Amino acid sequence: MSEIKKVGILVFNDVEILDYAGPLQVFSAANYIDSDVLKSPITIGTKSKVSVSKSKISITCNKRLSSRIKLDLFIIPGGFGTRSILEDKKLLAKIDRVIINAKVTASVCTGSLILAKLGYLSNKTATTHFAAVDLMRRLDETITVDRTKRYIDHGDIITAEGVSAGIDMSFYLLEKFYGKLLSDEVRKYIEYYPEAIENSKT
Amino acid sequence: MSEIKKVGILVFNDVEILDYAGPLQVFSAANYIDSDVLKSPITIGTKSKVSVSKSKISITCNKRLSSRIKLDLFIIPGGFGTRSILEDKKLLAKIDRVIINAKVTASVCTGSLILAKLGYLSNKTATTHFAAVDLMRRLDETITVDRTKRYIDHGDIITAEGVSAGIDMSFYLLEKFYGKLLSDEVRKYIEYYPEAIENSKT
Repeated sequence: MSEIKKVGILVFNDVEILDYAGPLQVFSAANYIDSDVLKSPITIGTKSKVSVSKSKISITCNKRLSSRIKLDLFIIPGGFGTRSILEDKKLLAKIDRVIINAKVTASVCTGSLILAKLGYLSNKTATTHFAAVDLMRRLDETITVDRTKRYIDHGDIITAEGVSAGIDMSFYLLEKFYGKLLSDEVRKYIEYYPEAIENSKT
Repeated sequence: MSEIKKVGILVFNDVEILDYAGPLQVFSAANYIDSDVLKSPITIGTKSKVSVSKSKISITCNKRLSSRIKLDLFIIPGGFGTRSILEDKKLLAKIDRVIINAKVTASVCTGSLILAKLGYLSNKTATTHFAAVDLMRRLDETITVDRTKRYIDHGDIITAEGVSAGIDMSFYLLEKFYGKLLSDEVRKYIEYYPEAIENSKT
């Protein structure tokens, strides 16, 4: 089942914090719990230091974006920074190369706009942040936007709803690639049980 | 109602990623939606650059920890890094000063161990990460650990369960300090509806 060992997460100026931090938490905890099934996720910066949207932090990644990066799973988060990526042909070409080299690419939130722009969602159902639905349709009118699903999986291309949906998509992928046991252990580790949260409040 | 304008989040070496990123996402989105009710949250680093637990990123904060920092709400995340803070009297004294100067202090996960060590949870009910319950009791045997609640609010001191609970605690505090309208708008913005997530999966 598990041929997904190398996971990488793209980070760029004005990335939305939870878009990248959610998947990074889930996959790095999975590696912490069972380092045999997946490596420690790498973070891929479009620059050596990128600033995070809305918040006063900047993050230093361990890899710079390059067309030579080979991943099994490539995660593209969203954020306002995606808008300028859509206009940056050189950057898009590099991202495209990482997608081509990856077995699976999964977007969170407006990360899907990059996939739409590059043609990966043509004639497919896909989802995105609620505020980006029109822009997604303008980028590629053959996309059927389905906002009833938390995430939509086409095997090699996956899209998820906005921001916090990256956490749920990551658990879905953990279970798919590594099985329910590891997924459940990570849920326990980060104490994330959406169905129970509403019942346990003070 | 709203006298909580200045929010600050502590960040230290080996902080757990979602412990700080969850609250930072929620409070920075709240500031983005209504900058009149709260300022952009500040991130307070124990060093100019801190490394994040389990992941290959380091973050640069906009403030350094100092006993002169005055906040309305001080958020203390958890992570393995809390263990060495418990042994660092100088650092503990600085954190204590920020707590004394703040109107409200809220911990996520093992951030509560710092509150326990400093005596803020004496004779109180409190919660923490499931794996830290024994350590919390050893730090202060007068604490009643209650693991049935997502977060426990004593007015000026709040503790939450592990990792992802920081998101839920932050929404609880948003609603308490700024009202349900803003809390609901932030929920919508980050598309976080725990009770609905389980029903919307692909």
